[in-house]
Amino acid sequence: MYIGIDLGGTNIVAGLTDEQGHILNKKSRRTQPQRGADAIVDDMASMCRELIELGGLAKQDIQWIGVGSPGTIDAEKGMIVFSGNLQLRNAPIADMLSARAALPVYVGNDANAAALGEVYAGAAKDCSIALMVTIGTGIGGGIVIDRRIYTGFNGMAGEIGHMVIMEGGRLCTCGRHGCWEAYASATGLIALTRESMQAHPESAMWSVAGTLENAGGRTSFDAMRLGDASGKQVVDDFIRYFACGLANITDVLQPEVICIGGGVSHEGDALLRPLQARFEQETFDTGGRNAKLILAALGNDAGLIGAAMLGHQAH
Amino acid sequence: MYIGIDLGGTNIVAGLTDEQGHILNKKSRRTQPQRGADAIVDDMASMCRELIELGGLAKQDIQWIGVGSPGTIDAEKGMIVFSGNLQLRNAPIADMLSARAALPVYVGNDANAAALGEVYAGAAKDCSIALMVTIGTGIGGGIVIDRRIYTGFNGMAGEIGHMVIMEGGRLCTCGRHGCWEAYASATGLIALTRESMQAHPESAMWSVAGTLENAGGRTSFDAMRLGDASGKQVVDDFIRYFACGLANITDVLQPEVICIGGGVSHEGDALLRPLQARFEQETFDTGGRNAKLILAALGNDAGLIGAAMLGHQAH
Repeated sequence: MYIGIDLGGTNIVAGLTDEQGHILNKKSRRTQPQRGADAIVDDMASMCRELIELGGLAKQDIQWIGVGSPGTIDAEKGMIVFSGNLQLRNAPIADMLSARAALPVYVGNDANAAALGEVYAGAAKDCSIALMVTIGTGIGGGIVIDRRIYTGFNGMAGEIGHMVIMEGGRLCTCGRHGCWEAYASATGLIALTRESMQAHPESAMWSVAGTLENAGGRTSFDAMRLGDASGKQVVDDFIRYFACGLANITDVLQPEVICIGGGVSHEGDALLRPLQARFEQETFDTGGRNAKLILAALGNDAGLIGAAMLGHQAH
Repeated sequence: MYIGIDLGGTNIVAGLTDEQGHILNKKSRRTQPQRGADAIVDDMASMCRELIELGGLAKQDIQWIGVGSPGTIDAEKGMIVFSGNLQLRNAPIADMLSARAALPVYVGNDANAAALGEVYAGAAKDCSIALMVTIGTGIGGGIVIDRRIYTGFNGMAGEIGHMVIMEGGRLCTCGRHGCWEAYASATGLIALTRESMQAHPESAMWSVAGTLENAGGRTSFDAMRLGDASGKQVVDDFIRYFACGLANITDVLQPEVICIGGGVSHEGDALLRPLQARFEQETFDTGGRNAKLILAALGNDAGLIGAAMLGHQAH
């Protein structure tokens, strides 16, 4: 059995999993990152002890602990090189937790861990080349090839959100102009929604959202379902941008599946069907061997399950 | 020793190489694709016999024959699925040549073969993750990871030229709008040059090229060297587009080196220095472990040398 820890800026979620990635028990605590690395690692260690006890297990029943963390990770050294959310820099998390828990500890990036989770136990189960795309504040990416996280030469591969799809376009938080995530993240969708609301005072998006400030990622989808033309146009634009980036990555990587997660994936078929149609228009005919677009299956558990599987990367 | 064959739409070039990819002897014939597969394969087989004889060798001194071909290749079946340049569809080249030459035959895409050549014997020698970018009529791409060609799930990965960098932009030959190769290929550079010439009748590009029709990939670079402002602006724009796509792929793949080939690479430092500067602006700080931009070293021989190394992919 393994322990997976999803170390987020808000919560630490730790879970005991079996070899197939099923979660047997789960614990959660507030991260409170301002406490610093020692206090956070103390908490992770005590959560591991609780999980072992709760499962009626002994330490030797656990093969390893895996930690998924936001930010830049040096997986080889088990270090968080930098994480703004966790307020950590050059934190040797693997060594620190291993010293307290007396178990091997592996650390990986949280987006990569989520991708690994979907490959081991979710929608991309057993796929040879899987790309996980998580639509949130930004666009997170994780590439898994033959069950191994593809990290590139320097450990930083998969930063798909900062691929420019509109040279000279919207300023992105990263400093580039026209990044994919400036258009096709939840933030991008909300920006499109607000622009359209300002241009269309008659739109049903106003009654759906109430105010401009209240407009969110669902506003345009909800208005579209009410028959609103502007809402539908926002959804169409969003899907066009979304498909553009997916087609770009497909041209380069040709994954077997592209697994879409994050809040917007809850729109289900309202998102997936038109996205699939546009994606097919934008990609080459590969004789029926096109990348499949699918929705992520594990939700918020993907990161924890993938973290639990991180030890496989080292073996 | 190996035999590598660069099967192009115009010429068939076959060469005998040693294990390190040095070319010992080389032969060339016109392809004349309208002759059909049998005549072309007959020629390839007789060129192999000539090379063996010329080297004072026996057939058992040759480990295999590798063929690099344009178009869509099924490497596993040794087939050219489709090549417009060669006017071939579903041609089982490996079996046909193997039957005539009584040697194992491996087939790969020519852009991938060129990438492999640079990794075995050229500018990207021994790099763990290499991306080869060839700027010509289009933009060709080849990805080599740990000396293996990365082909993706369906054999078609590395089509980097059709990554959109300008959503809704210029129509590309592929049907998408705003593809990288519509801006940063030699064709794209010439289009930028002609647009600028028409807008700037005073530009030195006119005296360099003579006529609009004569304007080529070197025109703007030559005018820039004469101190022409419009010429420099074209070069700057081209470099901005070129760097945009390189940064996009780097965010996804994080290669160790990006090896730039094709005609425009002959501009040398006039291309490489400003490209490098712009590329660094557009990519993340990776703590000094950024992808290196280098110029291809093998020129037209890259494809032949890489073809000779194709047999390693199967072993």
